[in-house]
Amino acid sequence: MISRKIRENLGKSSWIRAMFEEGEKLRKVYGADKVYDFSLGNPEVEPPEEVKNNLKAIVNSGKPGVHRYMSNAGYDDVRQKVAHYFGREKGVRIGAEHIIMTCGAAGGLNVVLKTILDPGDEVILFSPYFVEYLFYIDNHGGKSIVVPVDKNTFQPDLNLLEEHIGPSTKAIIVNSPNNPTGVIYGENTLLRMADIIEAKEHEYGSPIFIIADEPYDKIIYDGAKLPSIPAIFKNSITVNSFSKSLALPGERIGYIAVGSTVSDASLLVEGLIFSNRILGFVNAPSLFQKVVANSLEASVDIGFYEERRNLLYNSLVELGFTCTKPDGAFYLFPKSLIDDDVEFAKRALKYNLLIVPGEGFGWPGHFRLSYCISIETIKNSISAFEALAKEFIK
Amino acid sequence: MISRKIRENLGKSSWIRAMFEEGEKLRKVYGADKVYDFSLGNPEVEPPEEVKNNLKAIVNSGKPGVHRYMSNAGYDDVRQKVAHYFGREKGVRIGAEHIIMTCGAAGGLNVVLKTILDPGDEVILFSPYFVEYLFYIDNHGGKSIVVPVDKNTFQPDLNLLEEHIGPSTKAIIVNSPNNPTGVIYGENTLLRMADIIEAKEHEYGSPIFIIADEPYDKIIYDGAKLPSIPAIFKNSITVNSFSKSLALPGERIGYIAVGSTVSDASLLVEGLIFSNRILGFVNAPSLFQKVVANSLEASVDIGFYEERRNLLYNSLVELGFTCTKPDGAFYLFPKSLIDDDVEFAKRALKYNLLIVPGEGFGWPGHFRLSYCISIETIKNSISAFEALAKEFIK
Repeated sequence: MISRKIRENLGKSSWIRAMFEEGEKLRKVYGADKVYDFSLGNPEVEPPEEVKNNLKAIVNSGKPGVHRYMSNAGYDDVRQKVAHYFGREKGVRIGAEHIIMTCGAAGGLNVVLKTILDPGDEVILFSPYFVEYLFYIDNHGGKSIVVPVDKNTFQPDLNLLEEHIGPSTKAIIVNSPNNPTGVIYGENTLLRMADIIEAKEHEYGSPIFIIADEPYDKIIYDGAKLPSIPAIFKNSITVNSFSKSLALPGERIGYIAVGSTVSDASLLVEGLIFSNRILGFVNAPSLFQKVVANSLEASVDIGFYEERRNLLYNSLVELGFTCTKPDGAFYLFPKSLIDDDVEFAKRALKYNLLIVPGEGFGWPGHFRLSYCISIETIKNSISAFEALAKEFIK
Repeated sequence: MISRKIRENLGKSSWIRAMFEEGEKLRKVYGADKVYDFSLGNPEVEPPEEVKNNLKAIVNSGKPGVHRYMSNAGYDDVRQKVAHYFGREKGVRIGAEHIIMTCGAAGGLNVVLKTILDPGDEVILFSPYFVEYLFYIDNHGGKSIVVPVDKNTFQPDLNLLEEHIGPSTKAIIVNSPNNPTGVIYGENTLLRMADIIEAKEHEYGSPIFIIADEPYDKIIYDGAKLPSIPAIFKNSITVNSFSKSLALPGERIGYIAVGSTVSDASLLVEGLIFSNRILGFVNAPSLFQKVVANSLEASVDIGFYEERRNLLYNSLVELGFTCTKPDGAFYLFPKSLIDDDVEFAKRALKYNLLIVPGEGFGWPGHFRLSYCISIETIKNSISAFEALAKEFIK
């Protein structure tokens, strides 16, 4: 009836579904406000006023042609504006011809992988990872090679990375600020990584792409700086979306920026545009291309997330949890209080706490909390975490 | 640098690009209004007032939550409305649980193929075909089996179809009203096709899906009726979009409707939702889900297209072209005046006529004209067609 692989994957993820359904059940029994749902990265925050106003202005203008097809790469003027913005943010020279507008970052990643992968090509990703990467790589015939980060700092372990690069390595996914750890990969680490990659490219005679997945690039705390991937790596492809920065996750709007130093960048871009078409995206949604192009300087209120991070992080540490303080994004990734993180997540359900086991990110023994939810929910959840902790910390 | 397959495909389609670039060059030299571009299916028509008003109402309401994530299948209320509409249009019982909102029909087709295909599975399509089908099938490891239609009627040749169904046949794509011929596949033909398929399903012990791709279902002339695929076939999956019916092609909004008589429909739907997620679509654009759900009864003005069809069809026939009169869609598919349709298209450029060779649809010796353009352009093009015809018809 359906493909074997899809059926297997549905089977594998059944415990996540079971947990989700358990959460729905809890909501029905206790009411949504009595269930502390830290499981989803679905921001409750609204888009900035500037975005809403730009949307209204376009829609109310009555200008014709807003909803038509355009080039599969996106509107020329939108690509131009995004290029200008991206170049300035990253300190690199880049033109409209390096930008492809996409259906979010998820769409962009699939387009990139479709374009560069031959069957059996390897893509390195660091664990803990955003689990969808495994599917995206598999969609296009690639093989995922998982390299664990340093377990104390959550920074890439460069020796381990070097060991795992081989003649079939086509790309390395760098997700910083990271989901699920919230860590920003440090500039020195990335500079050393660039040296390693350059040596390996030389050794194997073929490019190794850095695919930077940066949907959280605007959500950064304590004055931290996000190092510029296209300035550090010769062969970089940055994928981004406006889902988090402008709180537009449902609208599926993002972009790919090909580094202008990529060898044969124009062939790569041509391939990306072709893949955007044949994967069925065709083009990024037209109205929201126009909206984001007029809102590139806008951002959600970072204070909104910072308040939540501080409250949750400080409370959990006080309760005895071990946790790295996140530099960015809106996730905490504490240690589970028992080795079996799936069992731990099940036990948390008893206190109406919905959390995601680290196993789902290739990192058992931890759990992820998404804190893009109401401050009230977080406040009310603390006593539930306390009760949960008391079961394990004697 | 990029995947071998993508590079090959870029190479293959280079003559289309060359023609497109030739067209751009012509536009620069002669001005856009002096170039008769019949090459693209990009409607110049604006969305109906009702759609524009629904869009404005949602955007101006200031209601929060419009741009957030929802279930990967789409909003519950939207699925409910689409199910109700679809069921009534097609004369079948269908529930919200059978609908998945998608990024257009192109997105929907990729989701369907990803979900049902195992490596090497075969998908039958009738030629002439929409060329993207070949890519969509290949994206997910399937094999395209091309079965030519009857060359006089452009209706499926059922004997040929029967010969091509084998144990690896997983699906048959039915595109009616058809791109490029404009033909509607007749009810009797489809009823007999259903008998053949049922016998083959019985013989091989596995379902064979009819994938109905129906983006032109509202653009139908002369009171013709579109037979109901889900009423005729037991295992049907209908894919549709609002690109043509509501003139929203750039917004990437469509849906999949799984026939309620499909064996194990709920597993299929679960697989489709999963594929929608992992292919990177995640969900259909949220704002336009709401817009189309409130505009299901709306339609572009069919008279707009009928006027163009009549003018172009009558003029070409008068000039000596052989052409089947289209029942629907907005394409004409006349015979080329020489066997070599690519050469014919090149010769047409001399008269500033941009047409697409039939070879691009797996049907050499014909050419496609897309008439979703201004009536002035069509009127002005007739003398160009006349001059072109005079080169060949003595």
